[in-house]
Amino acid sequence: MPKNPVSTSAQRLKALRNEMLKHKLQGYLVPRQDEFQGEYVAAYADRLKWLSGFSGSWGMAIVATRQAAIFVDGRYTVQVREQVDEKLFAPKHLINEPPPDWIGKNFRSGDQIGFDPWLTTMAEARRLDRVCAKQGLKLVAIAQNLIDAIWHDRPARPATPIEAHPLRYAGTASSEKRAMIAAELRQRKADAIILTDPASVAWALNLRAADVPYTPFALNFAIVDKTGKASLFADAKRLTAKLKAEFGKAMAVEPPEKLAARLASLGKSKNAVMLDPSHAPEHFRLSLEKAGAKIVEAADPCIMPKAKKSKAEQKGARDAQIRDGAALCNFLCWLQGEAPKGKLTESAAADKLHTFRKASHLLRDLSFESISAAGPNAALPHYHAKGVGSRLKSNQIYLVDSGGQYPDGTTDVTRTVIIGKASAEMRDRFTRVLKGMITLSLARFPEGTTGAHLDALARNALWQGGFDFDHGTGHGIGSYLSVHEGPARISKAGHVALQPGMILSNEPGYYKTGHYGIRIENLLLVASPEKIKGGDRPMLSFENLTWAPIDRNLIDTHLLTRTELQWLDAYHAKVERLLLPLVEAETRPWLQTACAPFT
Amino acid sequence: MPKNPVSTSAQRLKALRNEMLKHKLQGYLVPRQDEFQGEYVAAYADRLKWLSGFSGSWGMAIVATRQAAIFVDGRYTVQVREQVDEKLFAPKHLINEPPPDWIGKNFRSGDQIGFDPWLTTMAEARRLDRVCAKQGLKLVAIAQNLIDAIWHDRPARPATPIEAHPLRYAGTASSEKRAMIAAELRQRKADAIILTDPASVAWALNLRAADVPYTPFALNFAIVDKTGKASLFADAKRLTAKLKAEFGKAMAVEPPEKLAARLASLGKSKNAVMLDPSHAPEHFRLSLEKAGAKIVEAADPCIMPKAKKSKAEQKGARDAQIRDGAALCNFLCWLQGEAPKGKLTESAAADKLHTFRKASHLLRDLSFESISAAGPNAALPHYHAKGVGSRLKSNQIYLVDSGGQYPDGTTDVTRTVIIGKASAEMRDRFTRVLKGMITLSLARFPEGTTGAHLDALARNALWQGGFDFDHGTGHGIGSYLSVHEGPARISKAGHVALQPGMILSNEPGYYKTGHYGIRIENLLLVASPEKIKGGDRPMLSFENLTWAPIDRNLIDTHLLTRTELQWLDAYHAKVERLLLPLVEAETRPWLQTACAPFT
Repeated sequence: MPKNPVSTSAQRLKALRNEMLKHKLQGYLVPRQDEFQGEYVAAYADRLKWLSGFSGSWGMAIVATRQAAIFVDGRYTVQVREQVDEKLFAPKHLINEPPPDWIGKNFRSGDQIGFDPWLTTMAEARRLDRVCAKQGLKLVAIAQNLIDAIWHDRPARPATPIEAHPLRYAGTASSEKRAMIAAELRQRKADAIILTDPASVAWALNLRAADVPYTPFALNFAIVDKTGKASLFADAKRLTAKLKAEFGKAMAVEPPEKLAARLASLGKSKNAVMLDPSHAPEHFRLSLEKAGAKIVEAADPCIMPKAKKSKAEQKGARDAQIRDGAALCNFLCWLQGEAPKGKLTESAAADKLHTFRKASHLLRDLSFESISAAGPNAALPHYHAKGVGSRLKSNQIYLVDSGGQYPDGTTDVTRTVIIGKASAEMRDRFTRVLKGMITLSLARFPEGTTGAHLDALARNALWQGGFDFDHGTGHGIGSYLSVHEGPARISKAGHVALQPGMILSNEPGYYKTGHYGIRIENLLLVASPEKIKGGDRPMLSFENLTWAPIDRNLIDTHLLTRTELQWLDAYHAKVERLLLPLVEAETRPWLQTACAPFT
Repeated sequence: MPKNPVSTSAQRLKALRNEMLKHKLQGYLVPRQDEFQGEYVAAYADRLKWLSGFSGSWGMAIVATRQAAIFVDGRYTVQVREQVDEKLFAPKHLINEPPPDWIGKNFRSGDQIGFDPWLTTMAEARRLDRVCAKQGLKLVAIAQNLIDAIWHDRPARPATPIEAHPLRYAGTASSEKRAMIAAELRQRKADAIILTDPASVAWALNLRAADVPYTPFALNFAIVDKTGKASLFADAKRLTAKLKAEFGKAMAVEPPEKLAARLASLGKSKNAVMLDPSHAPEHFRLSLEKAGAKIVEAADPCIMPKAKKSKAEQKGARDAQIRDGAALCNFLCWLQGEAPKGKLTESAAADKLHTFRKASHLLRDLSFESISAAGPNAALPHYHAKGVGSRLKSNQIYLVDSGGQYPDGTTDVTRTVIIGKASAEMRDRFTRVLKGMITLSLARFPEGTTGAHLDALARNALWQGGFDFDHGTGHGIGSYLSVHEGPARISKAGHVALQPGMILSNEPGYYKTGHYGIRIENLLLVASPEKIKGGDRPMLSFENLTWAPIDRNLIDTHLLTRTELQWLDAYHAKVERLLLPLVEAETRPWLQTACAPFT
């Protein structure tokens, strides 16, 4: 039992204000994110939830001496009011009621606002500093997190086994990757880099773990120097024996407590240290500059090579997607028998799909929490059931967006099916989504083309009918890493050129609030530019990676062009050819029917 | 006869170096552009040509005490060597051999580089200053242009009549436009703005002139203050009697010599003066700051409302394009009879088209120098014949890209026709270009969509075959103003949202070097968002403005979708309906044949 439990939000807020007083602060920032800036925050770092009760994936509380506000984005405006005591935290919409307004009203010139430089990136700290300076406030980095000081029963940091990511899946040895990083350091006249993104650490050192759900990495920092030598700051006991054997002089493991001393030593030697300001905690900049180091700001050099999959990663992706497609087919066949009975819940369906995936004995985790949505719930692109969720009903649409983490690759696939009979409207909308999805699949494009340039190809058929969807068309995908990976994406804001080896999702949708939702998602691998027969210029194109039938009962073939119909029949023929040997015996007839050609 | 003629490039360069010596300069910049930063430079301001002989539309000489270089872009690398004495000026490719490299090699730390702040924008001066500072050089603004000091027989400034642009064409009174500018000034806490772009002056004050070819404006600056009062700095004698009557207290004309005094007075009153750094000469910033004024940097507030045409301008555009289409039809019909004889030259063809345009008695000027290109010449997108040019030959393609300035609108249209018989390859390429042009014409899109998002729609059919074209798909067009008008464009770099009222060209192409070139260009008016029958969301779309047959002999209908074919037949039906009453009697049968439906 902790000595002095602070058990409610009110008490916790009071305790925090006491801490603020000790540090002469009139304000304190409590962001959701941890020091790794990732999609998932481990329990030990979920300070915002501990303080306020809010459990959304993005939020920030600003605590003043009498008032406090919690800022959330459009996804969480309802949830925040359910979870948070509004007498303690005024809920605010991040865009409509931005923090600078609230700060202006609730602080006075000369007030000091504290923040934890571990939880705030260099870029964010710079932005906050400008906001505060404009209002005559002082932004102060406080080394000790004030929540941690009062959170006595704080969970331990995760410490799952760290294992080697074998060369046969990675395709590129860590030594080669570190040589590339070292070359980049020398070119930019830097002596070392702190890899602050756990995905970059996992990629550069070819290791994986399970510190957070869905993304198989360890929450640790690493330093690589200009000779290519790496230090992973992690508890050595976490490394598997096999991985430990790979560590040595060129790749050392050091206790996390030694990180501070290493920063001081970099400073003492007047080293130039590369940091990515959009990701690196402000803490690193402050410590290094204080110690005498020079900061070289540059984008994380792992981002681009990590996105451009090696030949082995490409092969792994192909294998994983076929395996995953067979599991999905087993599920869709089972669903066809089960759903019409009217008893199947959304969560039971998701569990069953998980079971089919596990049957391969290669599944390490799901790649994100499955979206299993019946009828009107499918109209919410990011829907997650509370409890067991709704039951699947006849003549309703069912949408399932899910993926797996396999040692050879990460999958992400969405299929939308009709339970019973589809309306003409559903078929029209589904076919428009499909047309967009096919047009993008068939795209050829010259080097330098970005996702923003291609996005309209996936939307044109919807736009023609007066429809659209309010999310990007596609995101990058890691290789047995994050299911959302930069830097490229297919959306109006996707300004990075697509390059051979990148894997991106292709997932246009249509959402009719209160009625139904549609999304069809395949993964695409960007293929190398090649000469088109009879053409002048080499063109990049996409290789399709995802194999699972697209529901024939939702397609209005009259809306498809000859080219689109040809694509669909060829796609289904290949689905059948690849998956028939892999699916369960009872799935086979279903698969053959589902893949029958239209022409 | 000037007293001391400096007749050759060598002598002129020597004289310039003498002037540099007087000003203690080790370097001097001679850009092509004048103080108005426009597409066309009047003879009095063509200093680069006078000094070096180079007549391209963009270039910059850097003169050192012993060496000199002339920087040109990719269009002019051949031409510059033909026109310039390479012993005097080393020709350099702007991108491959950028000025900073040459500057680094040819100057020493401490050297002073002079430039004329009238000819250099604020943004450009800032950039140059950074380049020089990096090399330890000092960039010095020299009030008196050193070329002008030695150019004794310099032509006079153009002083064509300045006439009113009638309200029935402009649609918005100058008073209303100036009120809008004044509101913008007050919102940005500025007291006045210097309109530095002659197109903005022409738009804001509703006046037109003919100081340069093709663009009907006067080369003058204007100041608008926060009450909406405007001063045009121009010789009052140039104003037509009708326009003079419209001038008065709210819109005054002042002699250009008074501009300096006005700047001083703005400074003396500590006024805040708005300048667009991407267009305003550095001279204004220097003078105003020296005098005590504050500079407010902001985009020229005329740019966006000028681009969004008023209802009257939209009507004018429709009328002008129909009139222009009739002239083009008369020409294309005449061409069909004349070209196969094998004697017609490119320049004679262009002249004949000009004659047909003049026959409307409403043509004020061409909107640019016509591109009249036979066979292989058409493969050069910006081709202009030397002398009479090539002769049109049988079984060759002929491309004509041209436009007119009419008091109610500016036109720009390209048609590509076959003289004799087209090859299967030509028909394939032409039809791919046409597919792109039709797809873009038919586009519907939500608010916020930019030209970069739509560009791929015009290229997809080409990309599919391994083809592309190396220019943007479309540019903005003025209303009896510049044929190239910002801020929106349809290209990979078009990052401004398309808004109702904007007019843009739609001109995909295909170019086979040494063989032939294809371009089809119509103008499109962005229509207001409207609800699509059966759809959820209002969508913007394009209204087609340009009417002239698309050569049936170059179309392979097998490559067209049903939708594309329907568009084509409907387009031709409308061309026939609109133009048959307007074309010459002998053109009518040709027009009917050219517009016959395919289905």
